[in-house]
Order: sequence, then C-alpha cells, then structure tokens
Amino acid sequence: MKYIKRIKKLTSNIIAIIGFVNKSYEGVYNSAAVIYNNQIKYVYNKQFLSNCSFFDEERYFKRGNENFAFKIADILVEINISDDIFHMVNIEIPPANSSGVELLINISASPYHTEKIKERINILSKIAIKNNVNIACLNMVGGQDEMVFDGNSLIINNKGKVLAHAKPFAEDIMIYDFKISRLKSSLSTNKERHDKKEAKLSENHRSLYVIDLKYCPKNKSNIEEYNYQISIKNNSSKIKNQPSCLEEEILGALILGTRDYVRKNKFKEVVIALSGGIDSALTVAIATLALGRDNVNTVMMPSLYTSPESIRDSEDLCRNLSINFITVPIWPIYESYLKSLTSILKDNEIDITKENIQARIRGNIIMAFSNEYNWLVLATGNKSELSVGYCTLYGDMAGGFSPIKDVYKTMVYRISKFINKKYSNLIPENIITKVPSAELKPDQKDEDKLPPYEILDPILKAYLEDNLDYHLIIKKGFEEKIVRNVINMVDSSEYKRRQSSPGIKITPPAPSGKDRRYPITNSYKL
Amino acid sequence: MKYIKRIKKLTSNIIAIIGFVNKSYEGVYNSAAVIYNNQIKYVYNKQFLSNCSFFDEERYFKRGNENFAFKIADILVEINISDDIFHMVNIEIPPANSSGVELLINISASPYHTEKIKERINILSKIAIKNNVNIACLNMVGGQDEMVFDGNSLIINNKGKVLAHAKPFAEDIMIYDFKISRLKSSLSTNKERHDKKEAKLSENHRSLYVIDLKYCPKNKSNIEEYNYQISIKNNSSKIKNQPSCLEEEILGALILGTRDYVRKNKFKEVVIALSGGIDSALTVAIATLALGRDNVNTVMMPSLYTSPESIRDSEDLCRNLSINFITVPIWPIYESYLKSLTSILKDNEIDITKENIQARIRGNIIMAFSNEYNWLVLATGNKSELSVGYCTLYGDMAGGFSPIKDVYKTMVYRISKFINKKYSNLIPENIITKVPSAELKPDQKDEDKLPPYEILDPILKAYLEDNLDYHLIIKKGFEEKIVRNVINMVDSSEYKRRQSSPGIKITPPAPSGKDRRYPITNSYKL
Repeated sequence: MKYIKRIKKLTSNIIAIIGFVNKSYEGVYNSAAVIYNNQIKYVYNKQFLSNCSFFDEERYFKRGNENFAFKIADILVEINISDDIFHMVNIEIPPANSSGVELLINISASPYHTEKIKERINILSKIAIKNNVNIACLNMVGGQDEMVFDGNSLIINNKGKVLAHAKPFAEDIMIYDFKISRLKSSLSTNKERHDKKEAKLSENHRSLYVIDLKYCPKNKSNIEEYNYQISIKNNSSKIKNQPSCLEEEILGALILGTRDYVRKNKFKEVVIALSGGIDSALTVAIATLALGRDNVNTVMMPSLYTSPESIRDSEDLCRNLSINFITVPIWPIYESYLKSLTSILKDNEIDITKENIQARIRGNIIMAFSNEYNWLVLATGNKSELSVGYCTLYGDMAGGFSPIKDVYKTMVYRISKFINKKYSNLIPENIITKVPSAELKPDQKDEDKLPPYEILDPILKAYLEDNLDYHLIIKKGFEEKIVRNVINMVDSSEYKRRQSSPGIKITPPAPSGKDRRYPITNSYKL
Repeated sequence: MKYIKRIKKLTSNIIAIIGFVNKSYEGVYNSAAVIYNNQIKYVYNKQFLSNCSFFDEERYFKRGNENFAFKIADILVEINISDDIFHMVNIEIPPANSSGVELLINISASPYHTEKIKERINILSKIAIKNNVNIACLNMVGGQDEMVFDGNSLIINNKGKVLAHAKPFAEDIMIYDFKISRLKSSLSTNKERHDKKEAKLSENHRSLYVIDLKYCPKNKSNIEEYNYQISIKNNSSKIKNQPSCLEEEILGALILGTRDYVRKNKFKEVVIALSGGIDSALTVAIATLALGRDNVNTVMMPSLYTSPESIRDSEDLCRNLSINFITVPIWPIYESYLKSLTSILKDNEIDITKENIQARIRGNIIMAFSNEYNWLVLATGNKSELSVGYCTLYGDMAGGFSPIKDVYKTMVYRISKFINKKYSNLIPENIITKVPSAELKPDQKDEDKLPPYEILDPILKAYLEDNLDYHLIIKKGFEEKIVRNVINMVDSSEYKRRQSSPGIKITPPAPSGKDRRYPITNSYKL
C-alpha cells in the first residue's frame, strides 16, 4: 500500500496495473490494482490460487469470484493474475467473441525452470487462439531465495504469434503501440517514436505499458525517468536477447539467482571453498559473472590427500578470473583432532568418520572467513550428490547459499563447457576432463560409491522430476540393482537435505507438488 | 492396501474402520474403509482437506463430496475424517434429528500442541450437542518428524459429556459398550466384562472398537491378542492417565516424539553434547526417559572458558541418571585453528568468529561420535535462542533431532523443575539456579545480548504464535526498543532456522498457517 500510494502520484496521464496484497474485511486477496488519474480505479482479486511448488496461496489468500474487464477508449481489456490464465484453456471464460474482450493483461510471478519459457509461450499461444484474444503477459524478474523469476514478458496476438518478448533474467521496460482502429480484428504495431505526450488515453490511439518493477529506489522516481529515456526503433527489436541454448538459459538463471540472493541479503562479497573439482570451479565462475571479480574470494584448504594437480588447477582458475585466492592447509588441525580423539576412534583406517572430520574442518574454516570478513559462503554441492547424500553435513554442505544445488553433475559439465566457449576458457581444461574425486582419502573416486553420472542423473530425473517408481524406471532400461540403490540413497538422505542451505531451483517440480515434500521418518525401503 | 489386506482376514466377526489412501481412477483420496466379514464394505472419502501447519492435503488429495453413514443393528452410524468434523459446528450437516445419525465416528491424525487436548474436547462437545449426536473420536498416536500425534481418543455423548478418554502419548485399546435400546435417547454404558463373543453384531447389543494401531508387527496379530486380554472393570477407568499439569503434558509429547524419531529411524543410541547448562540437562533427561539409560551417551567438551562448576554439574547429572559420560577437551584443537588462521583473524580478542570456531569444533567432535558409533546426535537448542538466532550453525545446532526446539527457555525451567519433583531431583539444583551462559568467552552471560527470558519469551509468543505486529506487542506493555530488537533478530535469523534439525512441535501454529513459512530474503525492517 505504501508503494501504491507513491505510484498513484505518478499516474495523472498513464494507466498503471500493479499487483498488491488487498486486505479487506472479508480476508486477504492476491490482487491487481488499476490506477489512473492518481486513483485506484479498479481492483481485481485472483480467482485460481497457486498451491503447488513453492506457492502456498491457499493458506493465505481468499479466492476472488469475479472476472474483471474495463474499457480503454472503447476497447475491452481484461485483467487476471498468473494461474488464472491457465484455466482459460479448458473453461473458455469469457470467450472473446461473446464478451468482446480484445486484450487480456496477465500479471504474473512465475518462477523459472528449464524449458519453462518455451512452455509458457506455447500455452499462452493456445489460450490466445482459443479465446480469440490478444495477450500481454507480464512476468516478475529477480531472485527470491530458491526461486528465480525470469522476466521474459510477452505480447502475443490472437493468432498465437509472439509480437514482443522482453529480456530474460533482467529488468526491462517494453513499450508496444497498437492502432485502435485495427485492434478489433488483428493487432498491428506502431513504429512511431514513443514519447510521454502520446501516452495519454485518446480515442484512437493508446499505449500499453509493460514495466517490470523490481526495485523502487527510495529517493528516485525511476518510472518517470524511464518514460523519457526509452525510444523504440522497430518491431524486430522487440524480441530481445533470447538464450541460444539450454546451457545459456540455465546459466542466466544461476547468475541472477546468485546475484539477487547476495545483494538483497545485503552482502557485498562471497567466499567459496575450492577443491580443484568442477563443482567449486563452476560456482566460482557463476559468482564472478554475478558479482564481479572484486567480490569473489576463494579458499583452498588442502588435506594430506589433496593432489598437487588440484592445487594447480585451482590457482589457474583464480588467475583466469583474477579473483582472490587464499590457502589454509588443514592437516595440522586434522592431526589435533586425531590426537584428541585417539581413544574414541576405533581403528587407523580412513573411514567415513575421518573423512567427515576433514570436511567439517573446512566447514569451520570457511565459516570463520564469513564471520571475520562478512563474506557470504557459497556452498558448491550439485544436485546429483545432494540427492544421494554424497556430501557432508556441516562440511562441504556448509554455507548460506548453494548456486548449483539443483544442477545435475552432467549439466555442471555442460554449463562449464558453455562458459569456456563464451568466455574464452575461464575454467582450466583439466578441471573439466579429470575424474571426479572428494580427495578425502588416497585414490578416492566418486564412482567408488556412486554409479557413473551419465547413469545416475537420468535415474534421478526419472525419480525426482518425472515421479516414476522403481518398476517404471527399470523399464527405461536401467539396471535393477542400481535403480534400487539410487532410490534408497535418495530416500534415506532426506535428513541431510533438510539441513542444506537454499539454492536456485532450475528443474520443474514433481507432478504431485512441491519440490519434494518428503518425510525423514519413513519405513519404506525397496 | 497391503495392511488392509491383512486386516481384512481378521474381520469375520468384527467391524474395523481403517484410514487409508484410496487411489481411484479419478484421483487419490484420503479415506476410511469400513471392513466387515473379510471385505471392504464401504469407503468414505474425506471432504474438508487439511491445508495448514504441516498438512498439504490440497496438494495431493481430491476432495470427497458425499457424507457417509451406515447401519449397524438398525442404528445409523456416520463416519468422517479429521477436519471434516470441525465443519459441523457451522454447517450442521446432517443434523442428527433429521438424518437419524446417532453415532459419529471421526478418525483423525491430529498433532499435539499445548492446550490442544482441552481445545479438542471443547469443540467436540459443542459439535455433539449442536448435532445431537454421540461422537467417538479416534486420534493417531506417535511421532512423525516434527509432529507428535497425542492419542487421547475420546467418546463423547450427545450432551457433550466425555464418557471415555484413552491414554495420552501412548498406544492404547479402549472398548466401550452401549445398550442399543437406550442409544437413541442417551448413551449409557455396560459394565459387563467384555469378551470376544459379545463383540459380534446382534440386534440389541453391540460394541464399539477404538483401536490405536501404531504398529502392526509383521509376524503377530496383536489385534486378536488384545481382544482376549482386555477386561474392563468400570466406567471410571475409562478416563485414563490425564496429565496433572501443562509441564507433564509437554513432557509426555517430548518423550514420545524423541523416542519415535530415534526408533523409527532405526537408531538404538543417542549422543548429546553437555554444556553444564539447563538445555542440555533437560535434553539428556528427556532422552533417558524416552530411551532408557543404556542408550544415552553424553560428551562434555570443555573449552578454556568452561567453568569447573559446569563440569561438576554435568558429572552430577550423569551420575544421577546413570548414563555414559565422556570428556573431550577442545582447547588443543582450538589452538591449532588459531595457529592456522593467524594471518586471517584480525585481532586477538575473542569475537564472534572465535566463539563460533569453538562451537563448531564441538559440532565436529559430536558428529565424529555419531559416525563412529552410529549414535544419533540430539541437539539441545531451545525455542528462545533459536528464534533470535542466539546459536551457532554447525556448532551447537549440529545434530539429527532437537527435542526442545519448540520449548521456550522459561518452559525449559518449568519442565526441569517438574521432572525433579516427579523423579526425585534428577537434574542437579545448581543447573536450574545458575545464570545462563554460552561460556565461549570469559564472564559471558546470555543477558549480555538478549533481554531476560521472562521478557523475551512472551514477546516471542506474541510475535510467532499470536501473530501480533510490533504495535500490538508494545500495547501489551513491552518496551519499544526491546520489541523492535527482538522482531529484527527473529526476522534476520531465518537463514539459521532453515538449516536447523527438525524438532518436536509443541506450540500452536500462527493463525495464518504453518509453523512460519517466512522468506530468508526480505527487506522488511522495523
């Protein structure tokens, strides 16, 4: 309401449609305000509440029960909010032919996951055709804890064609002009330079404002400023900066998600524990692209089992990126633990206890950097290892945010290669080609305990995202023993994930709801 | 379905009402099966899905759309499931007078929170009177991650009087006999000894079975066994073992919740880090009451700032409880950290960085015990400190389960005193009377950083449970500066709670939904 008050003052000759929380005596609604001439002219309350994945709207909001349209210069414009629009595929309310609605404005906070952008265009096109209506879909942009809202606002005509497409993963302002005389049959665009004067409502010409408002800086009206700055040259510029491949798309989400988590939580610098492996290398690269080289610090904490190769690769990485590289060997501290625990530890072999002691020394040290310099710790775990529990609580899992938490190991490689192609080999080739190892005991390899990632990852996807059970996964051609083993590892490591730091969600949720709400305590075993 | 198959075989002369997941071609329902003569005779699908606190039923289940009643010896019995019944207060469906329903059986999985038992009796009595119906409410018992289902099954007559009340926080079997001839007007009870023969359905006499099925051991039919064992002497024995005070009630929940988390997750023994303070003492006492003295291990990890008093108190505690007491001093390890981090740490004072290094050394050691001996680590944090973030991630927060996570510090004292009254001073008096301190630097006291717990706890309750805002809390008479400070501490430490281990929920949720779904990233500051 505080921001709406400020926006109201700026709407003497402009219509602004702003999402807000509408607290009435009947309850709280998720709503859109139509503001014009310094007043809230209309309020629409969202009817189809979002109650899957990270959304719990059924818990907080009342459902609206009215469609809403209003006239601008004799043209009927309907407004709805996010999920509302998807119910128009089946229900056809209201079919444009009968109601006369020609433009549907949908404001949305739809978080990113892989392929979502294509999906969204696809379904909006269908809705536009089916309802014979032009659609302007305005999507939020920015990171919020686990979610990244991807922007990508769209204007689609009643034939299902994308007329304009705003930037992905970035704030953007997009202005699109229609000649009203033609709007009723099909949309055409106006190539004239847009200026403030033209923005006022008139009988035969109007402008549609699509503004992604991420920040409203306290002492500055950036809306007014934008209005004077923007100029539009031609239609082709309306389709902006779309990613060339899946790797680029995901990287965009990871960079924005990391930047916004760090900045919005008021951190300036981050610190990352380097292992010499691909996960920490990619995390460092993402952090550098997100925050700039001056804000990224790395700490290498070699144990007795760290190879000289790992140290050299890490040094190379930091040299390529021109970022801060600190070394703190952990073996003297490790020795002091072994000495204090002599009577406790049963034998001299390096078992899981001793591996974890080493990992947790690193957790302690990296957190000491965080405490001492106010650097946010970025953890480097990927989705493959976190899913099967191949990671140490309070050790390598220590940190405030995990940029690649939802990225499978095979995709970690793909994105790293993409970065090297785009930014001329930032990540040393050897990090990409060598065999993955935790280096917590001599000659250790990930594949000692896990199936090869080329097999593990598609099994995990089938189980976690496609929600297939054991039998259906085997039917896809995977070995029974491996599938059983993977599922049991996933189910029994829920307790670790429960204590993991948040990370950026980039995969779609399982059909039955959120991003996996699974009990820790459960007796189900394959 | 597997268990229903087994139960079916036992129902040749008995009616069993069993909750199950009903997967039909239309979707998945939360349902009750009425089994008789080795067949499922009826299925009722829950209509009012639970979608608050820990329940996400709207995500998984379809809503049923039919009330359901069936006849036993000419008496109309209605069945519904948990939240369904609460909608009868307002809606009066079906009023018993018109529909003729005389007994309503409600099966429920209703988790415990303080005062819930009273609340439940209160509301069920109102429903019974309003609908002129007798109610048998059957509640699940046992721990499931954060939740403790408290049992406390009830039989209430149509005048709102509790006729029978099963055990709290324990499996129980309760048999209640009605003479059918009198059931239609008001319930009376049958004092005859119950045996298997009488259990069969007949024209003028029948038995109502209330069985809390927590486990169905694989090779044993405990249902049949119970039928022969139980004998009932008189009505007064039907009101069983109700707690004498709030402290006893909460303690019951904490013991059951701890026992079930440990046992159901297949652990035998636990390990707890002792500090000499009240939180670890209470946690140890709960663990011993839940698991037996042979299954509880404690580790004292003195630093340079641990007082001799703390060591002596901890020794006394373990002697009182006859449990395993191990000592591992942390100062040699701490020295090795300081040495390795000389060039990193900015000055010699014991600041937050150095306090946390010590706490995390303890976290590492206690986890080493867990890894080496397969002991589950119980963390000892209370609700007051966890709410304001007065605790160390990966340090004192390390552990698989936190028994007193939802218990305010003032209640920690009250429960400890209750334990000492009931079990002849298990907890050394000095632990209860001394001033709370983290002992991570010389002369440290909790009150250096926090308001006194007598002020902090009611502010936390007002904010977290009663959902009051800053202004309303101040109106209750608390100092502005303290309230602002507390709220800001709560809001800004969400990131710590996100990585905390699960613990037993004992306070009611905030009105707006779950047990606080709060974003980490948010700019709202008072």
